[in-house]
Amino acid sequence: MSQQPISRFTVPDIADMPDDIRTRILKVQEKSGFVPNVFLVLARRPDEFRAFFAYHDALMDKPGNLTKAEREMIVVATSSANQCQYCVIAHGAILRIRAKNSLIADQIAINYRKADVTDRQKAMLDFAMKVALEAYTVDDADIETLNAHGFNEEDIWDICAIAAFFGMSNRLANVTNMRPNEEFYMLGRS
Amino acid sequence: MSQQPISRFTVPDIADMPDDIRTRILKVQEKSGFVPNVFLVLARRPDEFRAFFAYHDALMDKPGNLTKAEREMIVVATSSANQCQYCVIAHGAILRIRAKNSLIADQIAINYRKADVTDRQKAMLDFAMKVALEAYTVDDADIETLNAHGFNEEDIWDICAIAAFFGMSNRLANVTNMRPNEEFYMLGRS
Amino acid sequence: MSQQPISRFTVPDIADMPDDIRTRILKVQEKSGFVPNVFLVLARRPDEFRAFFAYHDALMDKPGNLTKAEREMIVVATSSANQCQYCVIAHGAILRIRAKNSLIADQIAINYRKADVTDRQKAMLDFAMKVALEAYTVDDADIETLNAHGFNEEDIWDICAIAAFFGMSNRLANVTNMRPNEEFYMLGRS
Amino acid sequence: MSQQPISRFTVPDIADMPDDIRTRILKVQEKSGFVPNVFLVLARRPDEFRAFFAYHDALMDKPGNLTKAEREMIVVATSSANQCQYCVIAHGAILRIRAKNSLIADQIAINYRKADVTDRQKAMLDFAMKVALEAYTVDDADIETLNAHGFNEEDIWDICAIAAFFGMSNRLANVTNMRPNEEFYMLGRS
Amino acid sequence: MSQQPISRFTVPDIADMPDDIRTRILKVQEKSGFVPNVFLVLARRPDEFRAFFAYHDALMDKPGNLTKAEREMIVVATSSANQCQYCVIAHGAILRIRAKNSLIADQIAINYRKADVTDRQKAMLDFAMKVALEAYTVDDADIETLNAHGFNEEDIWDICAIAAFFGMSNRLANVTNMRPNEEFYMLGRS
Amino acid sequence: MSQQPISRFTVPDIADMPDDIRTRILKVQEKSGFVPNVFLVLARRPDEFRAFFAYHDALMDKPGNLTKAEREMIVVATSSANQCQYCVIAHGAILRIRAKNSLIADQIAINYRKADVTDRQKAMLDFAMKVALEAYTVDDADIETLNAHGFNEEDIWDICAIAAFFGMSNRLANVTNMRPNEEFYMLGRS
Repeated sequence: MSQQPISRFTVPDIADMPDDIRTRILKVQEKSGFVPNVFLVLARRPDEFRAFFAYHDALMDKPGNLTKAEREMIVVATSSANQCQYCVIAHGAILRIRAKNSLIADQIAINYRKADVTDRQKAMLDFAMKVALEAYTVDDADIETLNAHGFNEEDIWDICAIAAFFGMSNRLANVTNMRPNEEFYMLGRS
Repeated sequence: MSQQPISRFTVPDIADMPDDIRTRILKVQEKSGFVPNVFLVLARRPDEFRAFFAYHDALMDKPGNLTKAEREMIVVATSSANQCQYCVIAHGAILRIRAKNSLIADQIAINYRKADVTDRQKAMLDFAMKVALEAYTVDDADIETLNAHGFNEEDIWDICAIAAFFGMSNRLANVTNMRPNEEFYMLGRS
Repeated sequence: MSQQPISRFTVPDIADMPDDIRTRILKVQEKSGFVPNVFLVLARRPDEFRAFFAYHDALMDKPGNLTKAEREMIVVATSSANQCQYCVIAHGAILRIRAKNSLIADQIAINYRKADVTDRQKAMLDFAMKVALEAYTVDDADIETLNAHGFNEEDIWDICAIAAFFGMSNRLANVTNMRPNEEFYMLGRS
Repeated sequence: MSQQPISRFTVPDIADMPDDIRTRILKVQEKSGFVPNVFLVLARRPDEFRAFFAYHDALMDKPGNLTKAEREMIVVATSSANQCQYCVIAHGAILRIRAKNSLIADQIAINYRKADVTDRQKAMLDFAMKVALEAYTVDDADIETLNAHGFNEEDIWDICAIAAFFGMSNRLANVTNMRPNEEFYMLGRS
Repeated sequence: MSQQPISRFTVPDIADMPDDIRTRILKVQEKSGFVPNVFLVLARRPDEFRAFFAYHDALMDKPGNLTKAEREMIVVATSSANQCQYCVIAHGAILRIRAKNSLIADQIAINYRKADVTDRQKAMLDFAMKVALEAYTVDDADIETLNAHGFNEEDIWDICAIAAFFGMSNRLANVTNMRPNEEFYMLGRS
Repeated sequence: MSQQPISRFTVPDIADMPDDIRTRILKVQEKSGFVPNVFLVLARRPDEFRAFFAYHDALMDKPGNLTKAEREMIVVATSSANQCQYCVIAHGAILRIRAKNSLIADQIAINYRKADVTDRQKAMLDFAMKVALEAYTVDDADIETLNAHGFNEEDIWDICAIAAFFGMSNRLANVTNMRPNEEFYMLGRS
C-alpha cells in the first residue's frame, strides 16, 4: 500500500520530451504550481498527446452557451459514471473553482440527480449520462427535451462531445492507472 | 437551485422529540459541534430511530478485528455503489478521520479497486460489493477467499452486516432526499 | 445433497442465549409451534438480534394505512428480487395467511406485475422495487404517482422502509445461507 | 382484482378445435383431471400448437441420462429467470411430483444456487442459466465443466434445448398473460 | 484459425438421415443451390428437427399482415440482440432478398433504432426487442402502442411468436457453435 | 422511410470549409472515390475535426506490432458493442480490405467470440471489450493475460487507445445520427 506510481506504463522524463510538449507542460506548471499527471502519463505518445490536448482545448476553452462550470459538471458526471479516479479528482477540483462552489463536485460525483443544480443543468446531465452509457438510444425526443430547456444545436453538440471525449479520457486513465496529484483533492474546497 | 431541505418528508422539532432521542441528539451535537441530519430525518419515527441507531452502534462500535477505519471503508464503498449522497459525504468524513488519511474516502467512493488499500482490504471491499450488489451469488468460494486473507467467521459476518445495514440506510437516504450537513464535506481533509 | 444446516455460521444453543432473546424465541415457538430459523441464526449476535427485531416490529406491527398483507407483499416482492430463499418462503407463508389467499405469494414472488393485486398495490410494489433495485433514481415523479394512488407521506415512508429493511435481511440471509423451516412451505396453502 | 382471464388473446372453444388438438386436450384432461391452460391458449394457432407440443414431447419425454425430475429443474430455473408465472407454477408442480420432493421447486425458483441439489445438478443449472441469459458467451470451457460433471454430448444438447425451448415458452406465456390453473399451486406439496 | 466446423456437436451424414428429413434437405438444396447448415446441425435429433421446422414454417410461411420482409426484420433484430452469428448472417441474407434492399439487414443488426424502417416497423421492432430481452415487463400499454400503429391481435401474436421462436433458435446456434454457410454473406447484396 | 440525412445537425458545404479541411477531404475523395460522411459531419467544428483526425491517424497509421487489420478488428468490435451504424459499416469495409477477408467484419460485429480469429486476437478483443464496457475493472491480471499472448506495453496501450478513441467516435456518430455512405456496405466483399 505504499504510494502507487502515476501510471502503469513508463513515464518519460520532461527533459526527454519534444519541445512543444515540454513547453506546454512547463507553462501549466507555472500557472498551476504543479504538473497535472495526465500531461506526464500521456507524453509517452507525443502525437496522441498533441491530439488529445488540442481536442480538449477545442471543447473546454471555446466560447459557447455552456458555462465553464457547466462543462466541468459534464466531465465530473461522466467520469463518475466511468469510475475514473483521475478525472473525478482533477476535474472535481476545476469544477469547484469554476463554479465557486465547494460542494458541487462531490454532489455530482455521487449522484447528479440529487445535486444542487438547476433544472436546465439536470437535463444537461441526464443527456450527458445517456451519451456516456447508452448513446445508441439517443433519439429525437432527447433533442426535443434539450430544446425545451433552451439548449440549441451548438449546445447539444457541446454536451455530447464533452461526454464522449471524457469517456475516452476515463478509459485511458483507468487502463493506465493514472493517479491524480494530491493537490487536486483540496483545491477549491475552502 | 436554492438550498434543498434536509428531507423530502417533514422533520420534527428537537423540542418535540421523545426524551431519549432528544438526549442522544444533544449528546451528538455536543461532541461533534453540529447535529448530523440523519438524526433529525429519522427522528420522525421514534421506534425506527431507536432500532436504527442500536443496530448502527452494534456494528460500528463493537470490538472486532476490523479496524474502525476499515468498517468505514465498507460504508463508503457500499454507499457509493448505491449512489447515496448523505452516506458518502458523512461517512467519507468519518473515514478520513478514522484512517487519518485525507485522500482515501474519495478514492474509495470513486473506484475502490484503484484506492490505496492493502490487498486484504481490497478483498474485504470486493466481498462487501458482492453483498451490496448480488448477495444471492455469494458462495463457499467467497468465504475461502476471505479466509485466505485472514478474515475469520466473525469478520465475515461484520463485513456482510455492515454492507447490508448501510444498504438499508442508503435506500432510506435516497428516498427521503436526506441531505448531508455541509460540515462533513471538509472534515478530515486538512 | 443431504440436508443443509440452517446457517453457514455457527448457531448458538437456545440454552446459552441471553434471557431476553431466549424468552422471545420461546414465545414465538409457543405461538407458531416451531422456532423460525432466523431467530436462531441471528441470535449469534445478541445486540444485532435485538436491533433487528425491534426494527422489524416497528415496521411490520405498527398501525398504518398499509394492511398487514400489503406489508408482506412488499417483503415477498423485495425478497424475490434479491433471490432470498429464507424470506420468500417464510414471508410467503405469512402473506398467504394475512391475505387469506393461497396463490398470492407465489404470484408475487414470480412476477409481481402479473399477480392478482389491485392497481394501488401494483403501484406500491413498483415503488418498492425501485427502492430495492435503484433507489438512487427515486424522484418527485415517483412520489406523485404514489399520491395519485392514495398513498400519503406516512405510507410512502412505510413502503420505503419495509423494502429497505428486508433488503438488508435478504443480504444477511443470502450470506449466512439461512435456511427456512420446512413448515413454512405449506403454511396457508389449504 | 377480479380473476384474470387465462389469456390476453381470445381462446377458442374446445368444440371448435381441430380433431387432433381436441383429442389431445381431452386425453390430458382425462389423465390430469383438468385441462392445463397452455393447451387452450395455444390452440388459437393449430399449426403452432402442434409444433410446440411435438417439440415439448421430443425434449421432455425422450430417453436420456437426464432424469425427468432434472429436466423439470431446468424448466423451473429457466422460467424463474424469465419471470414466467405460468411455467414456474405448472412445471413447479410437475417437478415436485417427478422429484417426489415438495420443497425443491420453490427452492429452485427462488435461487437455484441455494437449492438442495447435487453438485452435478448445480452445474447443469449453471449451464442452463447461461443458455437462458447469455448464450452468446458459451464456450469450450463450459463444455469441459459439464464433461467433468459427467455430462456427455447428448446431455449437453438436452440441457441447452430444454432451456432454449422453455425460454420461448416463457416469452409466449408472458406476452399472452397466460394464467396457470389453480390446481397446479398445490400439486405435489403434501 | 483454420476454418471451424459447422457445429460443436457431431453432424450426421445426409445418407444416414430419416427419409423425410433427407427429402426436405435435398429439396432445400435444389432450391437454394446449397444446404443451409442449420438443417445439418439439427438433423442430429430427428424429432426436434421436425418440430423445429414445422414451427418455423407455421410462423414464417403463414399468411398474415406482416410482410415476409417484416418477419425477417424481427428475426434479424432478435438474433442480433442475442449475438447469434448463424441467424444474423442467414436471415440477414433472406431479409435483403425479401425486402429487395441490400442495406437493411446490416442496419437492423447494428442498431434497429437507426435503420431505414417506417415508424410502424420501428414499433414492431421495439416490441420484438421487449419480447426478446424482458418479456416479463410486457403490459397493456405495449399492446395499446402496437394497436395505435395498426397491429391487431393476430399481428401481435406473430411478432411475439417470431421473436420467441428465434430466441430459442439463437440459443441453439450459440451453444452448438452453428456456422453459417459462406454463401449467405453475399446473398442479396448486389 | 425516405433516405435519412447524413447528420442530425447541419452539415457545411465543402466550399465553405477552411482550406486545410477542404484539402484533406478532397484528397480522401480522390483516393477513395467518395467522401466518407464522417468528414462532412465533423467539419462543422473545424478545431474538433483537426484534433479528431490527428488522433485517428496517430493511432491507426502509426507503426507497431498490431497489424492494420487487427486495429480495425478492435474498431469493429468496439463499434458493435456501442451499436454504431456509421463505424461498423465504414470500418467493417476497411477491415475486410485490410484483412483480405470478406467474412471477418460481419463475424466480429455479431459476436467476436465466434469469429475466425486467432487466440491472440481473441485475447486482444476481450481486452478491447473490457476497455469499452467496464474499463474501471481493468487490473494487473488483464495485463498479464495480454503479456501471455505476446502483447507488450506498447501493444496494450494501442489496444486501449483504439477502443477508447472509437468509443468516443461511436458516441458522436450515434448522437449526430451519422449515416455511412452506401459504398461502404459492399466494399471488400467480393
